Order: sequence, then C-alpha cells, then structure tokens
Amino acid sequence: MTFVLHPRLVTATVPIGDLPLSRVLLLDDHRYPWLLLVPRRVGVEEIVDLPPVERAQLIEEMALLSAVLREAFSPFRLNIADIGNKAEQLHIHIVARDPGDEAWPAVVWSRGLAPYDDAKARLAVRRRVLAPLAGRGDFIELAHHTDPGVDRL
Amino acid sequence: MTFVLHPRLVTATVPIGDLPLSRVLLLDDHRYPWLLLVPRRVGVEEIVDLPPVERAQLIEEMALLSAVLREAFSPFRLNIADIGNKAEQLHIHIVARDPGDEAWPAVVWSRGLAPYDDAKARLAVRRRVLAPLAGRGDFIELAHHTDPGVDRL
Repeated sequence: MTFVLHPRLVTATVPIGDLPLSRVLLLDDHRYPWLLLVPRRVGVEEIVDLPPVERAQLIEEMALLSAVLREAFSPFRLNIADIGNKAEQLHIHIVARDPGDEAWPAVVWSRGLAPYDDAKARLAVRRRVLAPLAGRGDFIELAHHTDPGVDRL
Repeated sequence: MTFVLHPRLVTATVPIGDLPLSRVLLLDDHRYPWLLLVPRRVGVEEIVDLPPVERAQLIEEMALLSAVLREAFSPFRLNIADIGNKAEQLHIHIVARDPGDEAWPAVVWSRGLAPYDDAKARLAVRRRVLAPLAGRGDFIELAHHTDPGVDRL
C-alpha cells in the first residue's frame, strides 16, 4: 500500500518536503510558525507502533525541525505533540511559541485554525522554513500535495 | 550539578520510578491516566538540546510508557507532548485518552488540574501503571519525591 496523506492534513497544510521518514508540512495558521511531521507509513497511528529504528529517526526529525524553527524564528519555546484525536494518521506538531502569541501560555490546540490572509504571507513563512532544509542531502522539496511519497529510510 | 525536579512538577505529581534516562511521574489528575517523563538532565529544556543518544533513549521511554498505558487502561488514543510553557524543565506528557473523557476530542492541557479525590484512588492508578514496569531490570521504583536521582544511561 502507498502512503496517502490524511484528507484533514491535506486541507489544513501546504507541503514543504520529505525527510527520510516523514513528510514536512506547514500548517495554514498565521498565529504561529507551525510544522507537522508525518511518517510515510501506512496505517501507523501512534509513535509506539513504529519500529524502534523509525522511532529513533522520528525524534531526529523532530530535533531537526526544532532547530529549523529556532534558526528561522528564534522562538522562546518549542511545543511538540502527537495528538491525533481527529486525524488518526500519526503526525507530530512542532510549533514555535512566544510570550505574547495568541494562545500563550496556553497550548495552541483545540482553538481552531486561523489561515494566512493570503498565499504570499504563507509562502514567506514556507520560504523561511525551507531555507535551512534546502541544502540537505536527506531532504526533497515538494511543491504540491499530489507529489508521490518517496520512502527513503 | 545534581538533577532536581522542577517545583511545579513536584507539587502536581506522585513519583513512580526511574528509567535509564527519565523519572516517571503520575500527574495528580483523576480525569485521565496521565504520566510524565522527565529526563534527569540539569538545565535541559527542549528535546533538541539532548544529545542524539539520549533522544533515542527518550523516544524509547515514551514508547514504553505508551505500552504501559495501553496495557493498564486500553485507551482509544495516546496523546504525547512536550510543552513546558510554565515549567521550563523538559518533561513529556503521556496521556491515555478516550472518547467521552472530560476533554475529548480537545486536548487535556490548559484546563487546570483536577486532583484525585483521595490518596487511595491515586494509589490505585499508580499501582496499575507500576505493574508492567516493576519487573524490568532498567526500572527503579521511587516511593517519594525526596529520593535522589540516579543517572544510569
């Protein structure tokens, strides 16, 4: 079976690219720089259901996106979570947080989505996230959600 | 410097024990079976600031506690998060969730704490979490928050 992104994740995001295990997405919410990591594994809903070697890769990809958000946005804090109560496909949220952002110090989840005003603003954030990833040998940029998943782990 | 648990985490939890990297705590909230993993590392606030070998250990301990909650409570879903907006010491939430629990499908954070009615009820949950851990060679039970941290990684 081929990996297919959950419809809820398709509609709420723009793609950035693929790391060895996971697809990297930008959530369409202008309130916080907010990335998602989606392991390209069919039917996996929880971290514990990945094999250990892929769990080790997943936390390295979480650390990489943490470093990317730090480089691009210098946040006060990172919030990282695997929730999935509404979209059961395993996906990890990585959010750049700052005192004074719309939810601080509360969490960003269960507050709905506030999409970017226009495609240009969303593209600007996407570009800042992409910059530190683009030169890596283990990263492939994806322009559209229709690109096929590439399994490289 | 010696590892000392953040005061906010001391007051909100009862200790369960130590895994090779992290202390395991039960959050004092009767609404959901809710564990915390706190890496016994001084000054570490984010996952990305652990070295890679400790990140790999951390996600294995996250998976272990996921399996423990599954065995003890058969939840519909696990919610796992590193937030730390109020207690900067790195700590990972691992929460057993079910449709029909107090917050479902919303997240459990930023809703305050609802402590167990009595020590007996809290102890019963602690015992159910402890059962699958007690026989492991890499786990040491801790009875009180005053026990010293043991660094075994």
